[in-house]
Amino acid sequence: MVYPLPRTDLAVEAHRVRAGAGRLEGVEVRETDRSGFHVTTVEVRSPAASEELCKPTGVYHTVTLDPVLRREEAAFSSAVGLISGLIGDLLPKNDRFSALVVGLGNRAITPDAVGPHTMESVLATRHLRDQAGDLFSDLRPVCVLSPGVLGTTGIEAARMVQAVAADLHPDVVIAVDALACSEPERLCRTIQITDTGITPGSGVGNDREALNRDSLGVPVIAVGIPTVMDIRTVSDSDALEGLFVTPRDIDTTVSDFSKLAGYAINLALQPALSISDLDLLLS
Amino acid sequence: MVYPLPRTDLAVEAHRVRAGAGRLEGVEVRETDRSGFHVTTVEVRSPAASEELCKPTGVYHTVTLDPVLRREEAAFSSAVGLISGLIGDLLPKNDRFSALVVGLGNRAITPDAVGPHTMESVLATRHLRDQAGDLFSDLRPVCVLSPGVLGTTGIEAARMVQAVAADLHPDVVIAVDALACSEPERLCRTIQITDTGITPGSGVGNDREALNRDSLGVPVIAVGIPTVMDIRTVSDSDALEGLFVTPRDIDTTVSDFSKLAGYAINLALQPALSISDLDLLLS
Amino acid sequence: MVYPLPRTDLAVEAHRVRAGAGRLEGVEVRETDRSGFHVTTVEVRSPAASEELCKPTGVYHTVTLDPVLRREEAAFSSAVGLISGLIGDLLPKNDRFSALVVGLGNRAITPDAVGPHTMESVLATRHLRDQAGDLFSDLRPVCVLSPGVLGTTGIEAARMVQAVAADLHPDVVIAVDALACSEPERLCRTIQITDTGITPGSGVGNDREALNRDSLGVPVIAVGIPTVMDIRTVSDSDALEGLFVTPRDIDTTVSDFSKLAGYAINLALQPALSISDLDLLLS
Amino acid sequence: MVYPLPRTDLAVEAHRVRAGAGRLEGVEVRETDRSGFHVTTVEVRSPAASEELCKPTGVYHTVTLDPVLRREEAAFSSAVGLISGLIGDLLPKNDRFSALVVGLGNRAITPDAVGPHTMESVLATRHLRDQAGDLFSDLRPVCVLSPGVLGTTGIEAARMVQAVAADLHPDVVIAVDALACSEPERLCRTIQITDTGITPGSGVGNDREALNRDSLGVPVIAVGIPTVMDIRTVSDSDALEGLFVTPRDIDTTVSDFSKLAGYAINLALQPALSISDLDLLLS
Repeated sequence: MVYPLPRTDLAVEAHRVRAGAGRLEGVEVRETDRSGFHVTTVEVRSPAASEELCKPTGVYHTVTLDPVLRREEAAFSSAVGLISGLIGDLLPKNDRFSALVVGLGNRAITPDAVGPHTMESVLATRHLRDQAGDLFSDLRPVCVLSPGVLGTTGIEAARMVQAVAADLHPDVVIAVDALACSEPERLCRTIQITDTGITPGSGVGNDREALNRDSLGVPVIAVGIPTVMDIRTVSDSDALEGLFVTPRDIDTTVSDFSKLAGYAINLALQPALSISDLDLLLS
Repeated sequence: MVYPLPRTDLAVEAHRVRAGAGRLEGVEVRETDRSGFHVTTVEVRSPAASEELCKPTGVYHTVTLDPVLRREEAAFSSAVGLISGLIGDLLPKNDRFSALVVGLGNRAITPDAVGPHTMESVLATRHLRDQAGDLFSDLRPVCVLSPGVLGTTGIEAARMVQAVAADLHPDVVIAVDALACSEPERLCRTIQITDTGITPGSGVGNDREALNRDSLGVPVIAVGIPTVMDIRTVSDSDALEGLFVTPRDIDTTVSDFSKLAGYAINLALQPALSISDLDLLLS
Repeated sequence: MVYPLPRTDLAVEAHRVRAGAGRLEGVEVRETDRSGFHVTTVEVRSPAASEELCKPTGVYHTVTLDPVLRREEAAFSSAVGLISGLIGDLLPKNDRFSALVVGLGNRAITPDAVGPHTMESVLATRHLRDQAGDLFSDLRPVCVLSPGVLGTTGIEAARMVQAVAADLHPDVVIAVDALACSEPERLCRTIQITDTGITPGSGVGNDREALNRDSLGVPVIAVGIPTVMDIRTVSDSDALEGLFVTPRDIDTTVSDFSKLAGYAINLALQPALSISDLDLLLS
Repeated sequence: MVYPLPRTDLAVEAHRVRAGAGRLEGVEVRETDRSGFHVTTVEVRSPAASEELCKPTGVYHTVTLDPVLRREEAAFSSAVGLISGLIGDLLPKNDRFSALVVGLGNRAITPDAVGPHTMESVLATRHLRDQAGDLFSDLRPVCVLSPGVLGTTGIEAARMVQAVAADLHPDVVIAVDALACSEPERLCRTIQITDTGITPGSGVGNDREALNRDSLGVPVIAVGIPTVMDIRTVSDSDALEGLFVTPRDIDTTVSDFSKLAGYAINLALQPALSISDLDLLLS
């Protein structure tokens, strides 16, 4: 009998539960250290493995951000460089693509605000090219959208993204979202980059709200930060229904990681810019 | 020779400049007192009058909100009732229409934040009907959108509204925006309700960014609050370029008037609800 | 052997752990229903009971706020009335006392922001009496202080309160703070009102940071809302160190309960005012 | 007959009005360019000049921040260096002094929020020395206080600062505040550093609310940013009563300048730290 997977949006955790320290047919796992950060890459290759892990086939990088949390010298810029490289590898290879960057989630709920907050650090450039000609001609055209949540807009976020994408025809979509994890080691300490997009319901069934190549017609890169952990991971008491586990400094973490994700997306999309350029352009 | 109109989004001010205390062919002006508030209604009826006032033909109500600013007993609920009535008169007459409510402007710039702030007080209901059946079956389906501004999204607000409206097919659009006025008597003290939509460039020329029946295919009601006054209205010094006149308590006024506008829109759209219902549902 | 108490700031929980369904010498517990709310009153009467429960001798009311959370009609005003009554019973009996209301905690950390947020709803009146004479002569003089936290001010909050109280000589201090609880039934669902003040370290040992009659020389009423639950209450894994349990809607709850606490304090201090007066004066 | 001075908190403007391009007995004015910034230093030396300018005797530096506003490369760090130097010259000369940094003004009113916002960028260190010993032993002990405003606290800000200073005995006080100017050239484009403290009422009469060596017993350095201009400087219409002139991007300017002022104060107080250290410690 297959016991149920705990609720997690991280492929690395789903794999740990299913494979333990062993191996799973159709999944390749690589552990590397880059620029002082530990990176675990899970590649889900077969439909069977996808079903087993409840994750679509594709590549999932998980970067452990401990040096940033310890506020080590230069950790922020190293992490930005590393993550922008991981995103960059998943971008279209032609030089002249346009991008739509989407921040999912509810701005008014701190652990769900990663997406909208990250958008505050992503540089919209589509209109600069239209307006300013030469000066910004090296910049790829980028649009930025925070679609809000169903409860306050009455519109499914995926549907709003689809409507805007149908009008703008971006060549790639980058979606940023808060994730749920199942193990405290990763809570508010990691970031996942994947080429599989966002698939609510763990890749099975209901695709109405998916943001992926199927629903949008272009590649969708998802950048996610686990900010909540289902409490049933650590306790099965019914009284805990609806409660979540978070670190005390969730407000700071969401703010710091949102800036990190935003800067990494900018550098991946705009190789002509540096972190100092972003400091100037975004303040 | 015709001297130029000062920059104003208020039809009542454009009329005052052109007609003074007199009358203008093709314009009807009515002054009334309702529920303790002074209401000036300007009806622009002919193309010639429209050109003269740089305002599209249609109805413009301007309500003076002094009793609210003086925090008189029951002023808030009276104003909500009055304004919801003025909006209600402009809504479709059939019973089963759906609405898209749009908050224009930049959340990060206080005098421009009226639109996005108002959206925080507008009840999205489209999904409630889908989900809950009977309980909410009396509610008209309403969606709420804050499209942001070109500088931070890379997308013209009007274009984003068009994309979403093309997908949702609302029967009416209500757009809320901060306005500019030319006379201190109206600055942060009035609210304008019109059936002409939003027409940047004072109704002449560039219609690319208009939100009106022409661009959206459905009636567009605009609710606007003058939060800035061009300083050139009171001084022609070049050194004042780029400066605006605001009251010191602009933050409070934007917050108070946004709630007022949001509540009035809700009551106009959902006759089944009361102010106390909204207090419960929106907190 | 006496097993250790879980970390809780609620006397009712400490009593439950120690006494279970039974009785504890020196403690009186009363359960009542008032205005639709369940109130548990724990009276700690003897030094032995105080030591057993790690709570100073005094009265502790815990009100369960479920009707407010269910957004029942009139629940907010009933709860404000009930809590203002419980606070009022602990206030000085003479007519002309002055009060200092203090909001403890860190405004930048949502679950710790109850104190500072509540202060936004407490009416400062001391200067109104000085300035306006007759009009406000019925109002008791009230000052409002948010002393911040050691990490951002460099000053212990208790020390700052002492310095200000030494200058102002209030007749009573009301301190509002976020609490920790040990049982999910009370997390973000209850409010505790006590005449024992704030005693970090559960009433034993370190009194340097206490806010009570000993440290301030006047009665100190504490109003507390449990917003976090130590995760070790539900799991003893070391990996959970530093993590807390909160409800997903912690931002809304903190905002709602802060307004509730602020209004109740106002009505307790200013019997001449009503909730509608506060709506007008505080917006 | 002496015509009245326009309302301005800037010594350089008061001098311009009184002396024009000429000289005033008892006042020395020096214009310098440092690190790419224009600095005007006004030294008010005699009681007669003090009365003429309505400014206490002392030194007033006004730095024009245009390169920062144009977002020139390295302008932020140059400005921080320059301003920290100007503040540093006014600090006590002994090595072991302690400081109290005070942010005056109303956090809820954007143009008045410079003081409280700046405090978010000032490093409190007094408790670090107490707690951590060696690691932070190079840091001067600094406390940070945002006393709020009379309308929301019921306590005069000056009185709260006096109460806290009487308890902490700092060797110097640095007070940050929003200022009023009378000329658009300086509005939201300059910063004034003075050794005369804060003297409401332009140095004449009412000293109840002053923060200076007289009221606090230690040197008081004031750092001020002009964020509003009285509209009567440009127009004498009665209808403009209560209105102010601000730039449209006041929110951004207040945020940017608050960080600038905070960083400069840190570097002046803590010569062992760099801007990168502050980026890490304050995020």
